[in-house]
Amino acid sequence: MIHVAVLGYGTVGSGVVEVIETNKDSISKKAGDEINVKYILDLREFPGDPYESKVVHDFDVILNDPEISIICETMGGNEPAFTFSMKALLKGKSVCTSNKELVANHGPELIKTARENNCNYLFEASVGGGIPIIRPLNSSLTAEKIDAITGILNGTTNYILTKMDEDNADFDDVLKEAQEKGYAERNPEADVEGYDACRKIAILSSLAKGKNVKYENIYTEGITKIETLDFAYARKLKMSIKLLAMCKDTEDGFYAMVAPFMIPKGHPLYSVSGVFNAVYVHGNMLGDSMYYGRGAGKLPTASAVVSDVIDCARHLGKNILCFWDAEDMKLTDIARTKKHFFVRVAEAEKAKASEAFAGAEEVDIQAKGEFAFVTKVMTEKEFDEKIASIGGCINRIRMEG
Amino acid sequence: MIHVAVLGYGTVGSGVVEVIETNKDSISKKAGDEINVKYILDLREFPGDPYESKVVHDFDVILNDPEISIICETMGGNEPAFTFSMKALLKGKSVCTSNKELVANHGPELIKTARENNCNYLFEASVGGGIPIIRPLNSSLTAEKIDAITGILNGTTNYILTKMDEDNADFDDVLKEAQEKGYAERNPEADVEGYDACRKIAILSSLAKGKNVKYENIYTEGITKIETLDFAYARKLKMSIKLLAMCKDTEDGFYAMVAPFMIPKGHPLYSVSGVFNAVYVHGNMLGDSMYYGRGAGKLPTASAVVSDVIDCARHLGKNILCFWDAEDMKLTDIARTKKHFFVRVAEAEKAKASEAFAGAEEVDIQAKGEFAFVTKVMTEKEFDEKIASIGGCINRIRMEG
Repeated sequence: MIHVAVLGYGTVGSGVVEVIETNKDSISKKAGDEINVKYILDLREFPGDPYESKVVHDFDVILNDPEISIICETMGGNEPAFTFSMKALLKGKSVCTSNKELVANHGPELIKTARENNCNYLFEASVGGGIPIIRPLNSSLTAEKIDAITGILNGTTNYILTKMDEDNADFDDVLKEAQEKGYAERNPEADVEGYDACRKIAILSSLAKGKNVKYENIYTEGITKIETLDFAYARKLKMSIKLLAMCKDTEDGFYAMVAPFMIPKGHPLYSVSGVFNAVYVHGNMLGDSMYYGRGAGKLPTASAVVSDVIDCARHLGKNILCFWDAEDMKLTDIARTKKHFFVRVAEAEKAKASEAFAGAEEVDIQAKGEFAFVTKVMTEKEFDEKIASIGGCINRIRMEG
Repeated sequence: MIHVAVLGYGTVGSGVVEVIETNKDSISKKAGDEINVKYILDLREFPGDPYESKVVHDFDVILNDPEISIICETMGGNEPAFTFSMKALLKGKSVCTSNKELVANHGPELIKTARENNCNYLFEASVGGGIPIIRPLNSSLTAEKIDAITGILNGTTNYILTKMDEDNADFDDVLKEAQEKGYAERNPEADVEGYDACRKIAILSSLAKGKNVKYENIYTEGITKIETLDFAYARKLKMSIKLLAMCKDTEDGFYAMVAPFMIPKGHPLYSVSGVFNAVYVHGNMLGDSMYYGRGAGKLPTASAVVSDVIDCARHLGKNILCFWDAEDMKLTDIARTKKHFFVRVAEAEKAKASEAFAGAEEVDIQAKGEFAFVTKVMTEKEFDEKIASIGGCINRIRMEG
């Protein structure tokens, strides 16, 4: 029997216990031994809960129990998750986590500690919820040089954008509805400002490159400035607006960014709607591949944590290779990256804009008092300078694909 | 250094050598040691080929070389591939294959032999070309009970159907064009009759269930009866026609089948066009997930073979668990499965058809001399009886989703 402890009995932690209990037989078969949840660490008590007797409040009970070989860290946040994880790894106990914050902040250190102690630090659930993406990058696309990743990595913002599009509704109204339905947090900043997607693309780009991509260095723009009218223009262009988290090799180097983009109808990410996530990966031999599924939610996320538990169980005492060195990956300034931009300016600025953006194509949806167009391909720097020269714009959205 | 032999220097075999050479550094890093192609087995000579000196004609040279620990079987077909693979495994040499025919026919036996000899029989390339799907099923979705798989698993037929739809062209014309472009074989039977997709869904359903799903027991229908007019009806219904290979748990048991289906616009498989493949997997915890990419082609398929080589290199002397027992999986007769059917009958039969299929909804595209409708949900058996009672139909297509 393999004994497991769960740190944090919240949504994901209770999901982990539920997944292990629901699919007990097949999980034990695949792990090669029975998986038993021995402890649940939480500050709270859970009177009446079927697993009440497993709840402990002191991490040392878990740390000092030699029977515990695998720990599920589903607490979230940096501390005490980091300290607990390090202590466990130093004792040769594997850690499986859904904590993207911690992985983005301390991934290389934790991975190295696991390697040095013949155990594992696995984090399939930290990106894309239940979508297998970390393990495919580490174990399946191993013959590839990954040169681009483009993801819809945040379910809350994708839900909001989908609803704004379908219902022709304002950002504020949809956000409020999403909060009422539990799809958005009461403090939605981490989602709507793109911070969550930023952590996730930092993790994916680090794995693609084998070096450390610091999330603080990734240009990040949220969806709060997207207006209902932008979707009308997008429809006219046969495009959709999605919050994309991306990284890419270019002739100017490797860059990563998070921002709303217009993407065309033929693009596989175009039809990724609602709370679904998808990760589009380009490799130099394989070309394009895509991974799609539920990017959040109790059971999908817990399923990914448990898949890591099974992998740890299959590799007890043995480290599974994971290439993510502490060395910082140099990122190219996105000012040098090139693309089309969709732009809306006041009608009065039409002449000035047409001159500054010579060769742009007008997008006419008969919107009152404004003039909209798609620029030629240009660098972000060039774009910013031109926009400044005409005194700004109502809105602008980058275009992909 | 890890020495590898490639059996069969055709499209995939030469692709394997190309992938290993092109991405040599990163592959060696991920394998934990340098990967060297020591032999290429082929009956032919390759004068002037850069790897000419590695070509051998006698398998025993490879079998008896203790330096060879991994063999890539890219010959295709049952024999001599089966004999060579068995001999290699019995000597503890791992085998990585793209040979779906052999995997579908002898999977359990080869997997068992690998297990007994502390080596591996891996076949990521046998389904979905470069799309990671075998390893995700075996190593990522391990916490799930997989209850349904729906795949577009054959690039040739998907290309033909996409072209028929886009260009309003006949099956025969598009097939001819596909043959000229090299997207279809001169003898296209294995693709257009669904035999290729049938082998692949046999492999995926066996892995989903851990038992042996015999491809001979899978109901298989190809795309040769699909007409241009069917796409006009599909468009009217906001649907698309795809050759689906599927397996599913139902209250009546587990079934598998291959046939053309109409699928609705919102379905993630709807926009999988051209030579692309996709596999849609439903698990009891995760819900839906999808894997998308190039289902064939030299480098994508070779990339999958090489990912298996890397996995073997990481697990030298150690078997990676794979659950696919020799025990036959009982399949439910598809006659008991339920769905909507799209049906076209001669206009003269309208009254009879409307009576037999009471509650059906007409689909009117003003096609001359015929009457088309979508039935209520019914079993295949019920449908067949009704159709027989009205003396047949012009065409009928199953509906999914």
